[in-house]
Amino acid sequence: MYELHFGVPMVGGVLCTLNIRHDSAMISTLLKHSRAKLIFVDEQFFEIAFNAIEILSKNNTNTSNLPQIILVVDKNYKSTDEVAKHTSLVKLEYESFLLRGTIDFNFYMPKDELEPISLNYTSGTTSRPKGVVYNHRGAYLNSLATVMLNEMGPKPIYLWSVPMFHCNGWCLVWGVAAQGGTNICLRNVTAKEVFSNVAKHRVSHMGGAPTVLTMIINSPATDRKPLLGKVVVMTGGAPPPPEVLLKMEDLGFVVTHSYGLTETYGPGTYCVWKPEWDTLPQNEKAKLKSRQGVHHIALEGVDVKNPKTMESVPSDGKTMGEVMLRGNTVMSGYLNDSKETQEAFKGGWYHSGDLGVKHGDGYIQIKDRAKDVIISGGENISTIEVESVLFSHPAVDDAAIVARPDEHWGETPCAFIKLKDRYGQQVSSEEIIRFCRDSLPKYMAPRTVVFGDLPKTSTGKTQKFVLKEKAKAMGSLSSKRNSRL
Amino acid sequence: MYELHFGVPMVGGVLCTLNIRHDSAMISTLLKHSRAKLIFVDEQFFEIAFNAIEILSKNNTNTSNLPQIILVVDKNYKSTDEVAKHTSLVKLEYESFLLRGTIDFNFYMPKDELEPISLNYTSGTTSRPKGVVYNHRGAYLNSLATVMLNEMGPKPIYLWSVPMFHCNGWCLVWGVAAQGGTNICLRNVTAKEVFSNVAKHRVSHMGGAPTVLTMIINSPATDRKPLLGKVVVMTGGAPPPPEVLLKMEDLGFVVTHSYGLTETYGPGTYCVWKPEWDTLPQNEKAKLKSRQGVHHIALEGVDVKNPKTMESVPSDGKTMGEVMLRGNTVMSGYLNDSKETQEAFKGGWYHSGDLGVKHGDGYIQIKDRAKDVIISGGENISTIEVESVLFSHPAVDDAAIVARPDEHWGETPCAFIKLKDRYGQQVSSEEIIRFCRDSLPKYMAPRTVVFGDLPKTSTGKTQKFVLKEKAKAMGSLSSKRNSRL
Repeated sequence: MYELHFGVPMVGGVLCTLNIRHDSAMISTLLKHSRAKLIFVDEQFFEIAFNAIEILSKNNTNTSNLPQIILVVDKNYKSTDEVAKHTSLVKLEYESFLLRGTIDFNFYMPKDELEPISLNYTSGTTSRPKGVVYNHRGAYLNSLATVMLNEMGPKPIYLWSVPMFHCNGWCLVWGVAAQGGTNICLRNVTAKEVFSNVAKHRVSHMGGAPTVLTMIINSPATDRKPLLGKVVVMTGGAPPPPEVLLKMEDLGFVVTHSYGLTETYGPGTYCVWKPEWDTLPQNEKAKLKSRQGVHHIALEGVDVKNPKTMESVPSDGKTMGEVMLRGNTVMSGYLNDSKETQEAFKGGWYHSGDLGVKHGDGYIQIKDRAKDVIISGGENISTIEVESVLFSHPAVDDAAIVARPDEHWGETPCAFIKLKDRYGQQVSSEEIIRFCRDSLPKYMAPRTVVFGDLPKTSTGKTQKFVLKEKAKAMGSLSSKRNSRL
Repeated sequence: MYELHFGVPMVGGVLCTLNIRHDSAMISTLLKHSRAKLIFVDEQFFEIAFNAIEILSKNNTNTSNLPQIILVVDKNYKSTDEVAKHTSLVKLEYESFLLRGTIDFNFYMPKDELEPISLNYTSGTTSRPKGVVYNHRGAYLNSLATVMLNEMGPKPIYLWSVPMFHCNGWCLVWGVAAQGGTNICLRNVTAKEVFSNVAKHRVSHMGGAPTVLTMIINSPATDRKPLLGKVVVMTGGAPPPPEVLLKMEDLGFVVTHSYGLTETYGPGTYCVWKPEWDTLPQNEKAKLKSRQGVHHIALEGVDVKNPKTMESVPSDGKTMGEVMLRGNTVMSGYLNDSKETQEAFKGGWYHSGDLGVKHGDGYIQIKDRAKDVIISGGENISTIEVESVLFSHPAVDDAAIVARPDEHWGETPCAFIKLKDRYGQQVSSEEIIRFCRDSLPKYMAPRTVVFGDLPKTSTGKTQKFVLKEKAKAMGSLSSKRNSRL
């Protein structure tokens, strides 16, 4: 996948990397939507790709349009009869394919810098995937910006804990190459693998959604190895709970926090650390770091606006609005979906769908996804704020808050919680609710608590739509009016 | 000057910074050529600026076109009656001027990214100055590239030993700001000031022509202070003699080497260090580091070409050609000089006027300025190569080689040498010539040696045209045919 980030644009193609957790049905949909001509497949995923093309061929009268598979063989991967079977089905193998190349190949240069360079299906939680188109100009600028916001000097050692298929790898494939860096890629990202590879390769930089950080901080001591040098970890994808930031730094990692979406080539803003924050208490620091901050140097701007009037909200840290972005590193649009594209760019800004506030210093802070916010008795409840409190409970391993229908209040917060193994069943719903009420206004504290594992996307985000359905299926709570103090 | 790099473009103006060593006559020429409207002047240079405008007004019937002076008062600068006199002549003082501004000023955004942002008169050694025009697009890209090639992480501490008026400060004014850095500016750059400021402010980065490095390595021990951290020094402007690189690294500086011209927004190439060079002997390393290397990420390309056929020279490290560059960080052109502009861009590449070779790995190496190369008996002699040998002589503080007319060979090398103070007059011409013949083919060794100070430009480059005239004035050498072995 790393090599194809270069090879595909160099022949004038558009790179479309696919999520390795998709099933054949999903892959066939994306192959069709993208009109892919070639599909490069690691042995591990051959079965899925093969079946996806089978599905395509059944629904396609013109079989000459079907994408051709190029199999990537990995000597380190288990070589089973299964694989041998694949090999006979495959006409082209990656390394032999490469050998056809010539050293004096005249590679393609775009005629127009806005030509597409890659197509990225959002990891969104809706069933209808959107194909986000990146162009050469944006990709180039974002690659330079990402070097700066990852605080990369020359020759970084980058550990890919964020999947390379996610958001075009945040343009870090090109960014790391621009700095002459080294890439460490893992087949499976576990805390043990992270620690052992950081130590073995003297990793200087890595990234990960807050759930990856959670995995690291909750790993057993036997899986850990001491860090030998400075390791900068960029987190994003969801606002990191202050508790998680604190524990990562206790382990010696330097965490930076950025915010973005597939539509903004990955990170669009970052929480630039201010020297005057150095002397604050740890907890205060972590809270400030969990803000989304300011736009990076390749983006024209980020603002929090009223989506109806398109007016900026006041910089008071309170008034909520929609986070909007514009500039060179915002997508060209959605492939073959001019309606969605127009909708997304209403008023000349890209509408993120995230709700947030703007602080006095211009730093933005996300309060919730527009679709996740809970409206209880007419009050907006930021699920992120409630989750932050849950994460500060010593027994909580993972947590998510969604709306549960409520006869009286419309909606009330419902908590889904995964406890740490060593706490077993020793923590009750009542204790969790009491704990939240100690730190939050009562209306913000959960009224329902469910214990168990949380459903995740392949990039480690909690699938809130699954939880919302679960909460809905529980039926309405019948809160009394006087239940609110 | 730092603030004006931002303020001037923010009102839609074009910034033109002038060399502080120019006299009033030169300044008046540049004010006229640039059609300057405002001139911001530090107290120290008020006299020069005032007289320059006097000259202008004498030759100008329309006095309303004269640039207006805004005086920059520095409390730390000596306040004499002289200065008081100036103040009465000046209508505007910088800080009061700033106070007129409002916080909600709507700053100018270019309509077209190729609009000019700055005008830079070359420090060239010809009497007719050329006004090099930079545009917003190139300046933006070069600012990002310069962060990367100066190996700057976040919050660098930059010591301005390269003047900010030189080549638009290599776009580092914007680059350092982009990284949230701190700028240390000196009124006078001396070795003592450099060492004391590096220690005091924990400087992380600085720059300097090889003559600045020479000043540092030849400074008395009493002027020095130990470096407390890593200090990256980018050198350029002239190929650094290996001897100078070695001694800088002995002092603990990390020297990086780049090459460029005013026409390429400062550095256009740099000698990217290869890990496989790490184990070479020190002397070999320094030789490799003195190569100009490869183009940076914001430049489209650099090549060595035959200027007549525009064909690339072979990558054999031997065949000389002219170094040519093209891309976003090459100037828009020379102000009001379409003839020179066309000439400079013949064949679609900017012609640097530097002669060089291309090595097998694609790294370029400058052998000489086209106008400085010595042709002796039909052979090209790279003055840079001969100078490198001179710098390795323990008594040599500074050196330059130019052509002296020769009855038989056409030209032969003539060395101008400044000896280190402690060597006084103890080194003879004969010893210098013998020393060179030990390391060079005989025809490349100087036949004439002149001891004394070398004339310098304000940016520390040796003024070879002055030396050439001196060598010419000595008359032709009457070498015998058999003098060549």
